[in-house]
Amino acid sequence: MTSSFNPTPRTLMGPGPSDVHPRILSALGRPTIGHLDPEFVSMMDDVKTMLQYAFQTKNELTIAVSAPGSAGMETCFVNLIEAGDNVIVCQNGVFGGRMKENVERIGATAIMVEDDWGKAVDVAKVEAALKANPGVKAVCFVHAETSTGAASDAKAICDLAHQHGALTIVDAVTSLGGSELRVDDWGIDAIYSGTQKCLSCVPGISPVSLNDRAVEVVKNRKTRVQSWFLDLNLVMGYWGGEGKRAYHHTAPVNALYALHESLVMLQEEGLENSWQRHHNNHLALRAGIEAMGLQFIVDENSRLPQLNAVTIPEGVDEAAVRSTLLNQFNLEIGAGLGALAGKVWRIGLMGYSSRAENILLCLGALDAVLTEMGAKINSGAAIPAAQAKMK
Amino acid sequence: MTSSFNPTPRTLMGPGPSDVHPRILSALGRPTIGHLDPEFVSMMDDVKTMLQYAFQTKNELTIAVSAPGSAGMETCFVNLIEAGDNVIVCQNGVFGGRMKENVERIGATAIMVEDDWGKAVDVAKVEAALKANPGVKAVCFVHAETSTGAASDAKAICDLAHQHGALTIVDAVTSLGGSELRVDDWGIDAIYSGTQKCLSCVPGISPVSLNDRAVEVVKNRKTRVQSWFLDLNLVMGYWGGEGKRAYHHTAPVNALYALHESLVMLQEEGLENSWQRHHNNHLALRAGIEAMGLQFIVDENSRLPQLNAVTIPEGVDEAAVRSTLLNQFNLEIGAGLGALAGKVWRIGLMGYSSRAENILLCLGALDAVLTEMGAKINSGAAIPAAQAKMK
Repeated sequence: MTSSFNPTPRTLMGPGPSDVHPRILSALGRPTIGHLDPEFVSMMDDVKTMLQYAFQTKNELTIAVSAPGSAGMETCFVNLIEAGDNVIVCQNGVFGGRMKENVERIGATAIMVEDDWGKAVDVAKVEAALKANPGVKAVCFVHAETSTGAASDAKAICDLAHQHGALTIVDAVTSLGGSELRVDDWGIDAIYSGTQKCLSCVPGISPVSLNDRAVEVVKNRKTRVQSWFLDLNLVMGYWGGEGKRAYHHTAPVNALYALHESLVMLQEEGLENSWQRHHNNHLALRAGIEAMGLQFIVDENSRLPQLNAVTIPEGVDEAAVRSTLLNQFNLEIGAGLGALAGKVWRIGLMGYSSRAENILLCLGALDAVLTEMGAKINSGAAIPAAQAKMK
Repeated sequence: MTSSFNPTPRTLMGPGPSDVHPRILSALGRPTIGHLDPEFVSMMDDVKTMLQYAFQTKNELTIAVSAPGSAGMETCFVNLIEAGDNVIVCQNGVFGGRMKENVERIGATAIMVEDDWGKAVDVAKVEAALKANPGVKAVCFVHAETSTGAASDAKAICDLAHQHGALTIVDAVTSLGGSELRVDDWGIDAIYSGTQKCLSCVPGISPVSLNDRAVEVVKNRKTRVQSWFLDLNLVMGYWGGEGKRAYHHTAPVNALYALHESLVMLQEEGLENSWQRHHNNHLALRAGIEAMGLQFIVDENSRLPQLNAVTIPEGVDEAAVRSTLLNQFNLEIGAGLGALAGKVWRIGLMGYSSRAENILLCLGALDAVLTEMGAKINSGAAIPAAQAKMK
């Protein structure tokens, strides 16, 4: 007979999920009501309004897809792209590669613009690709690469795409709530995100927003959307205005309670204050990491504050360090992914995880474990350096 | 500024979600840990083992898809069916129609076997369709039609399909945990379900199981699965054995805590005891409903105990009745769907909702509201009739 599961509480400083605030866990556990209950429908309207705020958009089609960020990505691709389309996909990490997969599974062609992992997308390469490939339907890129910690210049890429008549599809899984993101000002046509990063909500749902231009493309498709579950022509009716709901699927009721609460907390803090907090805490962590003798792999001008990819001291078994952090201190940090596997750690300072006590815990625990393993670091230097930045 | 959402507690006796047991809500709200944390991976193994029990299968590929039942359906279809395939789809309610949508969006052909809403799938018609269409790849049907409350003879249909060399894809969204379902004994090749019906878990994830024969079909496809998110070739690696996990997407961590707890509770009760409880409570509700003067629309021999579609007294505004039940007694019952919209109510006795106090509340509230509205019912007859069956 299997017994109930009681997870050991952890401090989550990996690439996500991040720590979920007790207020959000409490909202999550509230009694389930029907997904067509007027109270629930009204709550969905609030979620929509607050997502518009988080995305800085007036887009009417702003919703939470009932599945993780990967499904939010797929929602944008299967609705906007059709077989035979040509699409520019920028890849500078894992998630650009996933965009390519999405494009190809639709039967469209991905024209790749590749940059080294850890670098921002090179805007000049995007421009060259647009010039070399007239008539591309969309330019797709990752605003904040979770696999490397690099931010790209979303506004510049969107401007270029629009000059060439292309739509933009943007991955904001790790940026939403944690660093500057302005959907309307930057001219992003379609964007998707996740809940388990800087919103500090539980994983499992994906905020998505499309502007009117993108909605027109969806409405005027030549072919049906290949996914019934993700067909926005149907999902729009479910999230439709004026309190009306056309039954499509059963919404993840409790997960939406949690998203609602996380967005209430974002409003209370203020979006720009949240961006500033993520920035300030990054500077404190950075001071400690560099004082210890480790380096950041992303250039300062494209470094994400919420996802810190740092080097591993020579000769250290990086997986053993992560296991020890988890087992001894209940602290999770992330491994490298793809081309960076075994080469970096990814330290997340996302949402509720981005706070002073976590920075000290992480630096102190890394210092302790690396020192015990005999790694060449400046033992004892990290905490005072971080603390100096926190004042 | 939007404030926190505190739903009014309801009693959920519609077609789902059903009442979620406090133990499951409590599990849901436990601290989020990483989806690659060894504790979490071990919990996923337990979920798999307990799902095998619930499905009565030894299928190695038994998982919870990270999205609602609709996505579980789509998982089965996009993995097993390819463009150009011919597939028999049985339709006797809403969800057979959704299967047809899935087949067509893949570029395959759906050969429809249609029965009236409220009837079981006619096995003779399935046989005729198989004879008339040699070489069909699969026979697809809904075991328990949530839109009508009709059960179909899954074993007989599977036997026929196999005699003709066809796979079977079965919708068990409403049957899993609530009425007899034996995946291995009945020869079901691929099956999907939901968590928010007779498992009494929160909505948002979908148990899916494929036997080895179906897995071979997935592995030997000529084309790539059109959905990256639902590609079982990738998802299998995430739910893979020996404690290894290939990163695919971020699992809905807390929703899986809840599913785990609901499956622990199913084990504690015993699967067959749960079936029996659903049956017994149906008989008590039925006695009350019939004493009141309402009828069941499904023949007794194919009537689902967990989903009761009953007639509406003549001249009654059925939507007003449901609103009054909700506003006055916090009781949710379901409307008719599709061809049965406005013609029936759907009263769910699923999972934790299937208990004596709910039967009395539902009958008492219906009696009170209908009597007040001047409907022609036998006022006062329902409760004693139900109580007599509960002894």
